[in-house]
Amino acid sequence: MKSEVIRLIKGRNDVTLTTYILDDSSEMLQGKSRPAVLICPGGAYLCCSDREGEPIAMAFLRYGYNAFVLRYSVAYDGTRPYHETDFANQTINPVKLHPEPMREIGLAFACIYEHRKEWKTDAKQIAICGFSAGGHNCAMYATHWSKPVITDFLGVDKEILRPAACILGYPLTDYLYMYEATKKAGTDAFKFFTVANRLMMGEDWENEEKLLDMSPDRLVTKEVPPTFIWATAKDELVPVAHSTKYATALAEAGIPFELHIFQDGAHGMALCDQSTSRQEALDVQTDPNAKAWIDFAAAWLEKYIAIYKS
Amino acid sequence: MKSEVIRLIKGRNDVTLTTYILDDSSEMLQGKSRPAVLICPGGAYLCCSDREGEPIAMAFLRYGYNAFVLRYSVAYDGTRPYHETDFANQTINPVKLHPEPMREIGLAFACIYEHRKEWKTDAKQIAICGFSAGGHNCAMYATHWSKPVITDFLGVDKEILRPAACILGYPLTDYLYMYEATKKAGTDAFKFFTVANRLMMGEDWENEEKLLDMSPDRLVTKEVPPTFIWATAKDELVPVAHSTKYATALAEAGIPFELHIFQDGAHGMALCDQSTSRQEALDVQTDPNAKAWIDFAAAWLEKYIAIYKS
Repeated sequence: MKSEVIRLIKGRNDVTLTTYILDDSSEMLQGKSRPAVLICPGGAYLCCSDREGEPIAMAFLRYGYNAFVLRYSVAYDGTRPYHETDFANQTINPVKLHPEPMREIGLAFACIYEHRKEWKTDAKQIAICGFSAGGHNCAMYATHWSKPVITDFLGVDKEILRPAACILGYPLTDYLYMYEATKKAGTDAFKFFTVANRLMMGEDWENEEKLLDMSPDRLVTKEVPPTFIWATAKDELVPVAHSTKYATALAEAGIPFELHIFQDGAHGMALCDQSTSRQEALDVQTDPNAKAWIDFAAAWLEKYIAIYKS
Repeated sequence: MKSEVIRLIKGRNDVTLTTYILDDSSEMLQGKSRPAVLICPGGAYLCCSDREGEPIAMAFLRYGYNAFVLRYSVAYDGTRPYHETDFANQTINPVKLHPEPMREIGLAFACIYEHRKEWKTDAKQIAICGFSAGGHNCAMYATHWSKPVITDFLGVDKEILRPAACILGYPLTDYLYMYEATKKAGTDAFKFFTVANRLMMGEDWENEEKLLDMSPDRLVTKEVPPTFIWATAKDELVPVAHSTKYATALAEAGIPFELHIFQDGAHGMALCDQSTSRQEALDVQTDPNAKAWIDFAAAWLEKYIAIYKS
């Protein structure tokens, strides 16, 4: 196992790729490259949550995939503790605005491609996996990776950027719907997303074109990879309809997908067990039913990027 | 994640502890030490199998445990490829003979205790986990860790050496029974174990006292930790009775245990899926039922070394 942290953008310490490369063995892969999963933690584009980074990498390593955790552009700048940060009054940083976060997924693909031999990774067999805002970022990439906003920015052969599969945990997929739903649902969620979205989009809710730009469920094409989605019906922060609407769009476009909606469970449960929980939050960060998602996801993933193709 | 290889014995490169230390986070453990699993791969005391090392560590890391892989004394010396090694005519190396391999588990406990702060590991919450011969080594340690053969050799406080739990995959537990069973079953297994045992015990089968010394199912005391065992009924190399006999001994001694015997499956399936298989051996190294063992083991382990005690 080799793990290291790579800076993806010169002069910036915040956009990084953490690599987790399993040892090879004559008893197993015998020199063959492994497929891999590229992970985008969530955090409302305010931060990249540790709970949705390394622990998720461990889950895919356990199934024999190499893993990469991408820390993409988010509002938090690390100058003071996260919970003391006044995001509501934070200055907008233009280098972090959409479409930068999804372009950074492209940077990660290009970086893995460049190091594919050293990292014994099959660069054509990389799934993306994101949670919450990281799920949004992955769904954005899934719907934009072959378009000029990504390809012209990266300037590499398009096929290097193609994701082999996409795994989404309780994602955001529709900002027009989010505007209606959170406004209707009450002030707290609306205030929260107003703060978060200003720092990621650069302006208010009222620009419908921009909200549409940020709504992958309205942008699904044939280029979207096979997709696995899971969420909880009782999610009070990101309504489950973000998942069901994206699934509807995939169905209508004929994209293979799997969807698991567990009835109970709060937003942001990650692996839903002790491995991604704080002691004082065990009641909202664990669930005996929802924790099945990772095994469902791993079984599904083998349809597309198994180590050994039959 | 930090991984490094530590030499446990001065002047020897073959006895090593590979560490896998998960990152801490204010979102999760907030400075609390993690419980850990110490893994002994199998390989008939001829080698330490890669298939039962790092992949098993990944499985426990996924549940939030730190992990350590111990490469203990085995006959293979690395001077030529394993399959070209003439073990039948290999000179006995006295530094590798029983009880060295189980003492090396003690060395690993002492090493983890020494580094417990640096490695953020709760040294009182370490489970041992072994497969096949590594399962034998763990069962030997489980039945000997508080006895002078270990404690006098290590010269540390006995409590540093106490295993919190023991997980055994298709272990050897009874060399007297092995002698009878393999002699009866035919020449191939008998020849194989004759070669392997000479290099580990230093002499032939005929010394009953030595065979008894190597039979943890006959040596269970109240000091044996809670134990989880899994195996397959159709194991043709190590008869499943090694597992059921050890379970019987645990039952009679009142040691808490869990036992899962899957009907089908060959010897040495490790995680029973793509993560521990060679392409050309998928039929004998994978099984859709037996692969459940790791989740059963993780659920059971939380009874003894959960990250958060209720």
